[in-house]
Amino acid sequence: MKNISAEIVAVGTELLLGQISNTNAQWISEQLASIGINVHHHAVVGDNLTRVENQFRTSASRADVVIVTGGLGPTEDDLTREAFQQITGMDIVEHETSMAKIKTYFQKQKAGMTPNNRKQARIFAGADVIENQTGMAPGMIVSHEGKSWIFLPGVPREMKRMMTDDVIPYLRQLTGESRVIKSTMLRFIGIGESHLEHKLRDLIHYQSNPTIAPLAQNEGVAIRLTAKANTDDEAAALINQTKQEILNKVGHHYYGADEETIEKKVLTLLQQANKSVGAAESLTGGKFTDKLISIPGASHVCRGGIVCYDTEVKENVLRVSPELIQQYGTVSEECALAMAENVCTLLDTHVGISFTGVAGPDNVEGHPAGTVFIAVHERSGKQLSQKYTFQGDRQTIRKRTVLKGYELLYNLLK
Amino acid sequence: MKNISAEIVAVGTELLLGQISNTNAQWISEQLASIGINVHHHAVVGDNLTRVENQFRTSASRADVVIVTGGLGPTEDDLTREAFQQITGMDIVEHETSMAKIKTYFQKQKAGMTPNNRKQARIFAGADVIENQTGMAPGMIVSHEGKSWIFLPGVPREMKRMMTDDVIPYLRQLTGESRVIKSTMLRFIGIGESHLEHKLRDLIHYQSNPTIAPLAQNEGVAIRLTAKANTDDEAAALINQTKQEILNKVGHHYYGADEETIEKKVLTLLQQANKSVGAAESLTGGKFTDKLISIPGASHVCRGGIVCYDTEVKENVLRVSPELIQQYGTVSEECALAMAENVCTLLDTHVGISFTGVAGPDNVEGHPAGTVFIAVHERSGKQLSQKYTFQGDRQTIRKRTVLKGYELLYNLLK
Repeated sequence: MKNISAEIVAVGTELLLGQISNTNAQWISEQLASIGINVHHHAVVGDNLTRVENQFRTSASRADVVIVTGGLGPTEDDLTREAFQQITGMDIVEHETSMAKIKTYFQKQKAGMTPNNRKQARIFAGADVIENQTGMAPGMIVSHEGKSWIFLPGVPREMKRMMTDDVIPYLRQLTGESRVIKSTMLRFIGIGESHLEHKLRDLIHYQSNPTIAPLAQNEGVAIRLTAKANTDDEAAALINQTKQEILNKVGHHYYGADEETIEKKVLTLLQQANKSVGAAESLTGGKFTDKLISIPGASHVCRGGIVCYDTEVKENVLRVSPELIQQYGTVSEECALAMAENVCTLLDTHVGISFTGVAGPDNVEGHPAGTVFIAVHERSGKQLSQKYTFQGDRQTIRKRTVLKGYELLYNLLK
Repeated sequence: MKNISAEIVAVGTELLLGQISNTNAQWISEQLASIGINVHHHAVVGDNLTRVENQFRTSASRADVVIVTGGLGPTEDDLTREAFQQITGMDIVEHETSMAKIKTYFQKQKAGMTPNNRKQARIFAGADVIENQTGMAPGMIVSHEGKSWIFLPGVPREMKRMMTDDVIPYLRQLTGESRVIKSTMLRFIGIGESHLEHKLRDLIHYQSNPTIAPLAQNEGVAIRLTAKANTDDEAAALINQTKQEILNKVGHHYYGADEETIEKKVLTLLQQANKSVGAAESLTGGKFTDKLISIPGASHVCRGGIVCYDTEVKENVLRVSPELIQQYGTVSEECALAMAENVCTLLDTHVGISFTGVAGPDNVEGHPAGTVFIAVHERSGKQLSQKYTFQGDRQTIRKRTVLKGYELLYNLLK
């Protein structure tokens, strides 16, 4: 396979004003990664002729393939063609098929076509034209001084269609890659990124096929493995072998691969065990239950939950005894255990889980923000509870509490 | 005011692999636009020393201010400091305050500190250090050969805090703008972006100070007004006048400015009216209550809630009569009203709100996904209920349902 480096250039002042995010670059990068093309740069430049020209020169100096999104539209600000013409001297001609399509569109809309719409049908002489199935301006593939230039509209829907139908097949040919590329994401909980990396440092250092890339995710840590091989089976075997080596070191923290999330995993384990769960949530305010119910099919496992932020709700709805609260306070192991047991009974579930503690910013009952108790009660009578001290602001503490709850359940059920 | 151009460089291979989107660049761009600094380029480069060095050289050649996000963490891949040292020859030293903080963190977590965590405390000798209030690695402001370099962590929460507290004030000084720039965000609910823009098209077109920029937000629509004037009062007056003109046209949908959110607004209105609220949530699964409890001080207004995803919980905990459910089904106005009334009684609140419906993907009781009933019951006996048909996937339907609930409460309380 030829080693090809790519750069993605977005043209559009709206990106530099922060009005929209460059999601095109993310999407294109994912596609290129999946066919083994290395993206070395993303660039965003505004609708300014000189600056677009200079960006194109910089990009040409460092990439084999330059994918340009945006600046092909009808307005005066759309300068991608002009800039590329300036640096290459290529001729621009009208593309008849595209022009006919634009005319038809305006006839159908019974709207007069303004002259600037003609702009959209212009292409570089000799370019491979990519038809726009969902919009006006066609895309183009142009070879110039040994580099491939790919021009695509900035509208995500139009760009994606062209990438999938035309650009990816073209690039696969360009790479001459006959090998299969396979990728998987391993997901971990209860371990930080630096800790994980430390434990795997030798593997990460010496391993090249598959490559091993640790990633901090919103919730937990992940490792992406990417293997190249002659066949699907061979690539899968390479991945499997490295996965085993990784799990030998940190398997205790592994909960699933690819699209798995910890709440989906817990839901699956509960389904397999034919068990239901209910939560009594104080500081987490419904966040634990919300995550579970956000998964389609949760109804067989999660009947509901009680948000008992106020002490009165703990007493009157959850039936935690006022004496217990008087003696130990609501931020206590005793209260957490009573909440877990009582929500189990009230909702008639197999497992009850409870969250009580201080989300902050203020102290509660003398405990600082971040003090949290989580308890689990099983219908069989088995109980456990745990005290935590989380760092961070109110939102972080609440999120970490919920995540820790899922981790506890996962360890209980696995 | 000095004309200052800025460039935003993100360092991180995960961006080039398409694993995450460069939302930092968008957010920073918005901030810079609001203080009149022109962003001419965004760049993304991977965790590769030579390429980061070259990117820094390119950026320095074309911008006055370079803001670098990412690459300050503990792992071997974090190379931002090394790359900048290569091109400038600046010394790197350990920042004592940051080191002490990192040590304390690991002590509190009772986790061993791996040696690589020490990396995070390193700074350039002579740099202005920006303390990291929400994480480990400090930020830095460095002047080099007439350019300002600003190094920030890639974690959005940490980056934003540093931008707001330290970088923006620094940059304002740098611009030497003697005029005051004042900016405000007007927030609307119950109206779409194109509708709002259409109603305000003349104002948007002819108005230049303040500028009027409509923005689609995650929740609802906003308009950013930015005024320049010689004094604070003058800028405030300019903004106020345009704000009034806007509210004359679309004031019915306006709920607040700047950091206001619809849930904060509802919380404030409830506090002012000395009222409490409780929710009975079926398809929303706790999301409504979670949003309220995520606000500090919610405890005076929100005692808790019942998540009654399963019919049995609606009957056994919320005491909705089985006969009613048998006759009308759970996806019905009747059930919504009973849920709202009963949660009001059960939690002893002034207001009860309920959500029942079909989040999808499957139909429920013959109703398609997106069919939703929301009801509100006040202790005084006043009731209202509303049927909605939302489009979108499970998550979208659930989010829109919660948002609509807040809109309903807002209209009731305002």
